[in-house]
Amino acid sequence: MQLNDIGEFGLIHRIAPRFLKNLRGKILGIGDDCAVIPRDDGESLLVTTDLLIEDIHFLLQKISARDLGHKSLAVNLSDIAAMGGTPIASFLSIGLPKGTSIDWLDDFFAGLDDLSQRFASPLLGGDTTSAKSSLVINIAVLGKGHPDRIKYRSDAQPDDVICVTDSLGDSVGGLRILLNDLEDPGSTDMEQLIQAHHRPIPHLPEGEWLAKHDAVHAMMDVSDGIDSDIRRIMEESAVGARVDIENIPVSDALKAVSDQLGWNPREMAATGGEDYCLLCTIAPSSIEQIGLAFQQQFNRPLFRIGVIEKTDALIYHQNNEPISLAEPGWEHFK
Amino acid sequence: MQLNDIGEFGLIHRIAPRFLKNLRGKILGIGDDCAVIPRDDGESLLVTTDLLIEDIHFLLQKISARDLGHKSLAVNLSDIAAMGGTPIASFLSIGLPKGTSIDWLDDFFAGLDDLSQRFASPLLGGDTTSAKSSLVINIAVLGKGHPDRIKYRSDAQPDDVICVTDSLGDSVGGLRILLNDLEDPGSTDMEQLIQAHHRPIPHLPEGEWLAKHDAVHAMMDVSDGIDSDIRRIMEESAVGARVDIENIPVSDALKAVSDQLGWNPREMAATGGEDYCLLCTIAPSSIEQIGLAFQQQFNRPLFRIGVIEKTDALIYHQNNEPISLAEPGWEHFK
Repeated sequence: MQLNDIGEFGLIHRIAPRFLKNLRGKILGIGDDCAVIPRDDGESLLVTTDLLIEDIHFLLQKISARDLGHKSLAVNLSDIAAMGGTPIASFLSIGLPKGTSIDWLDDFFAGLDDLSQRFASPLLGGDTTSAKSSLVINIAVLGKGHPDRIKYRSDAQPDDVICVTDSLGDSVGGLRILLNDLEDPGSTDMEQLIQAHHRPIPHLPEGEWLAKHDAVHAMMDVSDGIDSDIRRIMEESAVGARVDIENIPVSDALKAVSDQLGWNPREMAATGGEDYCLLCTIAPSSIEQIGLAFQQQFNRPLFRIGVIEKTDALIYHQNNEPISLAEPGWEHFK
Repeated sequence: MQLNDIGEFGLIHRIAPRFLKNLRGKILGIGDDCAVIPRDDGESLLVTTDLLIEDIHFLLQKISARDLGHKSLAVNLSDIAAMGGTPIASFLSIGLPKGTSIDWLDDFFAGLDDLSQRFASPLLGGDTTSAKSSLVINIAVLGKGHPDRIKYRSDAQPDDVICVTDSLGDSVGGLRILLNDLEDPGSTDMEQLIQAHHRPIPHLPEGEWLAKHDAVHAMMDVSDGIDSDIRRIMEESAVGARVDIENIPVSDALKAVSDQLGWNPREMAATGGEDYCLLCTIAPSSIEQIGLAFQQQFNRPLFRIGVIEKTDALIYHQNNEPISLAEPGWEHFK
């Protein structure tokens, strides 16, 4: 049997029991955006780590060194945001082909440093080594959160309203433009989509704010696309979900570029991934009040895209009629 | 300018100031075996991360999956030992070529799990992804230590006695046997050297024990070979050192295999690396008492190999005469 027979989630299911059996107390291991480690000082530690490999996760001809430095850290900070936590520090391991230029490295570290400073999360160490041909980047981030406020994937309840903290699909739109060489230098709409793909801003303030509300139940970040990510919440919470396609928020830029290029923007928004905003479920009795307060705090809506149900299925609706999506969420190995 | 013009240490010197300027208080970043982050509960956190890439750090034809799982964690736990700390948990990122077999993965995780259990440091999470052709492994370990007991590379003082916690050179002997296909299946000496290379045991009990003694000043683990590692202590502590070659401990197994194959065992012990025992400097007034207590605790000597000096040079002596070593310590990129 080979890895591509069971896939990434199959592998995690296979190895997790071996390691989870060793855990005691309130430690949370494999299965959420971060591991959660309780500490005696009343705060829990959060740890996340992400591996990025050239030509698998990024193409060096398509992303600048500065953007890659930014994005490598951003995707990890987004996992801290997903738990409602605050980052403390980051740790970089980098495997560099011998011919890597120092100018490229200076720009990479400048991009990493800018984002580190923005969220007061310094780079405190790591490992540098040579690589054969592909550039390899691993960032681990240490964060913290109050144990009573940390949000998990496993806390969704039937009738919760499913919300996202930003419009979806810009990032995959940017990726499509880059991969197919569709870039029109004069198009600010295209530029917005490419920016969304290369320079995602982790929703740390939104995560910390949502974490303060007990009525916010499950939370995670949108990394694989909501079609895949909602299934993670369903699995961990043993619930189903209904998503109303017309309520999935899509930016004006994605709409305009989709019109131009014949894309289906809502399908891209559901399945694209790498949005790095937050997906959460909120008790129906509090949704009005939290939605209003979110709008006041962040000057944009907390978008309501569906409802958690007692079933075990994810059903999309359009105009109150069930429909099916063409493609499932991205999964590695398959 | 390219990376191989400045090397690994050149790169670290280039990027460290950018990130260190952001640090406040007692946080220690880039430049030691672990980053040190003070916490309010009276313990500091330690974080280390190591990246291992197929064909750079290991050859899949030469190491079993189980040994690779063991070693990937061991080298990180050794960094926690180097500070006198205790591990809390580990985090694995793994990039896997598509054809990786599930049997191989099961064995890899079994090796990792065995060592995790031995040192009560569970694997709590990570990232799995596909890789193009080379297997990529990154492990980050979170540990802890009492702020007054953590040992740094920067605290060596003139006249300190330089000690190591085990014999040196077995690991590089094992590597030479493997790389040159010299293995004689009947030789227990060769088997010992290969074991030292594939299944190093991190000196966590030794590190915690040494950390309790104020007279133990600087400490680190032996990863690049003492020739290179002592220079790191010299640099961080602004001191020099004298090493007496005849006092470098060499195992009977390495002596026997060296006799057989015409190797110079003490030069290998000085420059080989990957020993993963500890290197420390101890105040001369306490060396007798600490050495005796170490022997009682661990049933082997605390080997005294030299003395810290006020100069800025590393001088080897043999029979009290200065001599030079043929090769410097291994450095990536060069």
